[in-house]
Amino acid sequence: LISATALEGLPEVHPGDDLAGLLHAAGGPFGAGDVLVVAHKVVSKAEGRVVRLADVEPGPDAQWLADQHDKDPRHVQVVLDETEELVRAERGVLICRTRHGFVCANAGVDASNAAESDSLVLLPEDPDASARALRAALRRYGDGTAPAVLITDSFGRAWRHGQADVAIGIAGLQPLEDWRGREDSVGRELRATWIAVADQAASAADLARRKDARQPAVLVQGLDAHVTADDGPGAAALVRTRDEDLFR
Amino acid sequence: LISATALEGLPEVHPGDDLAGLLHAAGGPFGAGDVLVVAHKVVSKAEGRVVRLADVEPGPDAQWLADQHDKDPRHVQVVLDETEELVRAERGVLICRTRHGFVCANAGVDASNAAESDSLVLLPEDPDASARALRAALRRYGDGTAPAVLITDSFGRAWRHGQADVAIGIAGLQPLEDWRGREDSVGRELRATWIAVADQAASAADLARRKDARQPAVLVQGLDAHVTADDGPGAAALVRTRDEDLFR
Repeated sequence: LISATALEGLPEVHPGDDLAGLLHAAGGPFGAGDVLVVAHKVVSKAEGRVVRLADVEPGPDAQWLADQHDKDPRHVQVVLDETEELVRAERGVLICRTRHGFVCANAGVDASNAAESDSLVLLPEDPDASARALRAALRRYGDGTAPAVLITDSFGRAWRHGQADVAIGIAGLQPLEDWRGREDSVGRELRATWIAVADQAASAADLARRKDARQPAVLVQGLDAHVTADDGPGAAALVRTRDEDLFR
Repeated sequence: LISATALEGLPEVHPGDDLAGLLHAAGGPFGAGDVLVVAHKVVSKAEGRVVRLADVEPGPDAQWLADQHDKDPRHVQVVLDETEELVRAERGVLICRTRHGFVCANAGVDASNAAESDSLVLLPEDPDASARALRAALRRYGDGTAPAVLITDSFGRAWRHGQADVAIGIAGLQPLEDWRGREDSVGRELRATWIAVADQAASAADLARRKDARQPAVLVQGLDAHVTADDGPGAAALVRTRDEDLFR
């Protein structure tokens, strides 16, 4: 049995806020087998990863792309600052490979739910480090016991409509479960079975959340078998590198 | 609160079996707000969508591809028969666009968990029609009440490791929830929010399932707000058409 329950009563998060304390107050104490799934926006805000448009000076590339795609050149400049490689710029969509290796629209830069209407929220600088820090802080609040922590974002998909939440930062949950080489119920090798557990947990959590009701954190239970005492390889293990990219 | 519970006690499914009857016996009666998530393999097997390798005569294209990628030419022939467009054939992986428009490895043709070791399981001919038929049959078993039905498969992703389950056939669940144009918690338009509810439900269900324990069916509860009396547009609404594909 897997369950996902949104935490109620989290206040608006501001730079410098003690996010672990707010999460603990809203839903703690958490168990050692729990997975606490947190939308990256509140993590980014607590870390001060917010840019005011008024402070941005767009360069010529941003100006050109903004003209081509009918966008605010300051917004495009912030996206380019977060981008390692512009994968596609087509039909008003900028698909970027971020510094972390994630391929997503606008390099994860987002205006929605920013506290101030003229500001943009970036992805955390190092989401795996953010997840580890959040887990460590929750352990202090939990008297030595901490849940696994997932930091998530909503990503589009290459060949399917709509977005699904994925893990961009992980501490204490196996990102992948590898059944390749193991046997199925009739003793045959399961060759193509390499399960993105953390991404599926991110998607499960998103179903429990109302987008208009400030529910950035969701408690997922029943994944104890995938929770680890050590923080593990993080969401970096989920990134298909440029080298492995079949679509370059 | 969202929950996902694997159904216990489903027997091995054979061509011609009454899958609705087996599902009803294992976990029914189901409620009108329930979502019953079924791995496509048992649907395909019940529908007889199984090919024996001994009956396959590979053509020259299959022979050539099999040589290039170190595969069984009969297996490749079955994949090509299910393929509308070969998107990529690289490093031993055939990525195909199926007749249904799905982009996935080997056109969804799979050997694992097939009852006989020399046979392959195909995707259902029309998975949305299969979902509707299954829902209608469950309604008969449920004295007029039926759950929504999702038929799922595990798909790889373009830029991320591992597989996540997605919906390939749907009856009675909104495939997508559209928040575009609606407002977030500070009254700002949620521009990029178009949620693949059905795919996220498929992923949530997969977390509840043990791959080696014959648990093809999972009951997901708590999605009542997305369940509809009519069968709706099906998983066809999740397919990004070739026309919309940013990566051609």
